[in-house]
Amino acid sequence: MRYIVGIDIGGTNIVVGTVAEDGSEVLGLVSEPTFGEQGADRVLDRIAKLARASMAAAGGREIAGVGIGSPGPLDTKRGVVLLTPNLGWTDYPLRDRLEQALGMPAVLDNDANCAVFGEWWRGAARGADHVVGLTIGTGIGGGIVLFGEIYRGASDIAGEFGHMTIDSTGRRCKCGNYGCLEAYASGPAISARAVEGIEAGVETSLPRYVEGDLAKITAQLVYEAAHDGDEFALEVVKDTARFLGAGVANIINVFNPQVVVICGGVTLAGDRLFVPLRSEVQRRAFKPAVAACRIVPGELTGTAGVYGAAAVFIQRTWGRV
Amino acid sequence: MRYIVGIDIGGTNIVVGTVAEDGSEVLGLVSEPTFGEQGADRVLDRIAKLARASMAAAGGREIAGVGIGSPGPLDTKRGVVLLTPNLGWTDYPLRDRLEQALGMPAVLDNDANCAVFGEWWRGAARGADHVVGLTIGTGIGGGIVLFGEIYRGASDIAGEFGHMTIDSTGRRCKCGNYGCLEAYASGPAISARAVEGIEAGVETSLPRYVEGDLAKITAQLVYEAAHDGDEFALEVVKDTARFLGAGVANIINVFNPQVVVICGGVTLAGDRLFVPLRSEVQRRAFKPAVAACRIVPGELTGTAGVYGAAAVFIQRTWGRV
Repeated sequence: MRYIVGIDIGGTNIVVGTVAEDGSEVLGLVSEPTFGEQGADRVLDRIAKLARASMAAAGGREIAGVGIGSPGPLDTKRGVVLLTPNLGWTDYPLRDRLEQALGMPAVLDNDANCAVFGEWWRGAARGADHVVGLTIGTGIGGGIVLFGEIYRGASDIAGEFGHMTIDSTGRRCKCGNYGCLEAYASGPAISARAVEGIEAGVETSLPRYVEGDLAKITAQLVYEAAHDGDEFALEVVKDTARFLGAGVANIINVFNPQVVVICGGVTLAGDRLFVPLRSEVQRRAFKPAVAACRIVPGELTGTAGVYGAAAVFIQRTWGRV
Repeated sequence: MRYIVGIDIGGTNIVVGTVAEDGSEVLGLVSEPTFGEQGADRVLDRIAKLARASMAAAGGREIAGVGIGSPGPLDTKRGVVLLTPNLGWTDYPLRDRLEQALGMPAVLDNDANCAVFGEWWRGAARGADHVVGLTIGTGIGGGIVLFGEIYRGASDIAGEFGHMTIDSTGRRCKCGNYGCLEAYASGPAISARAVEGIEAGVETSLPRYVEGDLAKITAQLVYEAAHDGDEFALEVVKDTARFLGAGVANIINVFNPQVVVICGGVTLAGDRLFVPLRSEVQRRAFKPAVAACRIVPGELTGTAGVYGAAAVFIQRTWGRV
């Protein structure tokens, strides 16, 4: 059995694991903060260090190569990160640098593509021919896996579901556009909506969770308060479900997938999110397309990107996974 | 050279032609009103009559079979039209009935899929690997052609771009949802917006085109008035471009296609539509995805569906077109 090092570079953390080629296990799972502001070369050193630590922890396995999932946009063929607003990299030849640092072959793909590919390979979308996924965190990314292959589009940009317009005259998004899904349902958008409500005087226990420091209210905290029975927090989660529902309904009408898999911290909200999400989709999308589709949380919490990056390496190097 | 009868069943007209297997020509182009309200069997008789007339006009060619493009949803494998709101058919075995009537093999696909496939085969999207198209008429349909194959999704429903939410709290759509693209940019939506403006008292020459009978204002008439310099009609066309732009931007962010082809009567508006449409897309979608994509009117005016239906027959019967 050969192993592949899977690397998931996030805006906040880097996660690395050593994955069996049949996807049966991930060994030596290690993680460190990204500290993107230190510059690409320092981050690269940290990635290489984590990769060595993971291989060591995996204990003398035969390592075939490295799969890297990175924020984009990027050029998967040349292995270059063209631009990462969160990390501040421009035209960085991440793949070649990591190949040199580790002395083994590497492949590069988009982080959200990797997460969804991981869920297709070993997680909630296993075995489905038509899979679309959303990764919800600081931003909203997306991945499309059709007949066991990542669909990348004409220039590696496909799947930017976070910047799908769901309300053409609505909230301003960081991308400059108005009414993007990301402006409503990303982590920061969820906490922003909560803070807006508090500032408008709604009754809620949320400020007590942060000793009155509203800047500390995160999406995760909103889920916690909802779990504890806070009515307003529940309302914020339900609103999130409605916005996400409009986005997922669009995806279902357009792709007619068998599975829509939702990855990321937002899945912590559990049924409080998924029940109203499914009902909003039911209301909005074509009935036969809804009937053909499961809407599920990802199963590979924290490791979908690692599995997926390894799977991309396997597919590009040895053909079908 | 073999020939295939291509049949395009629309809500208003049926168009039939006899298409060379290399797509070099369409012979015996004939057309008649659909009269869907007469019921499926009567329409089937008319289709068969038109097919015979087309083959006769094509003059003794070797005919290999029949391709049918029909409104849906439908089951392409079983050749059954599941439901057509505009024609009133339910679970109608259109393919088998037409095979019996004509005594030759037939295939069935969605009308919008056929139109976009036709544009990929012989029209504005020729040769591109990533093609998405919209057909704008009474409704808004869509087709997705990836690497020379129609993408149909898990249950033949993919490509319903007309029911993509672009304004989640917006106009009610016939489908029951709110803020669908079709509720803003279909032919009837364009005339409805024009009539609303007239009823609100705007200054426009439009009523003169219909001797004051506002019910007769069609989208095509709005384009005519815009062409003649009517400021309000121009405004309606520009608004249409903005709504369409939000939809096309979503398509570009999600599919990262090389070509978005816009088919149907709306293309009559020409640059008055396409110039503001492209600029709205530029404003909304990811710059590198916009840079990778041409947004063009269809080239096969009135025959895209006929070409495409023939191409579907060729592909399913003999492999790649």
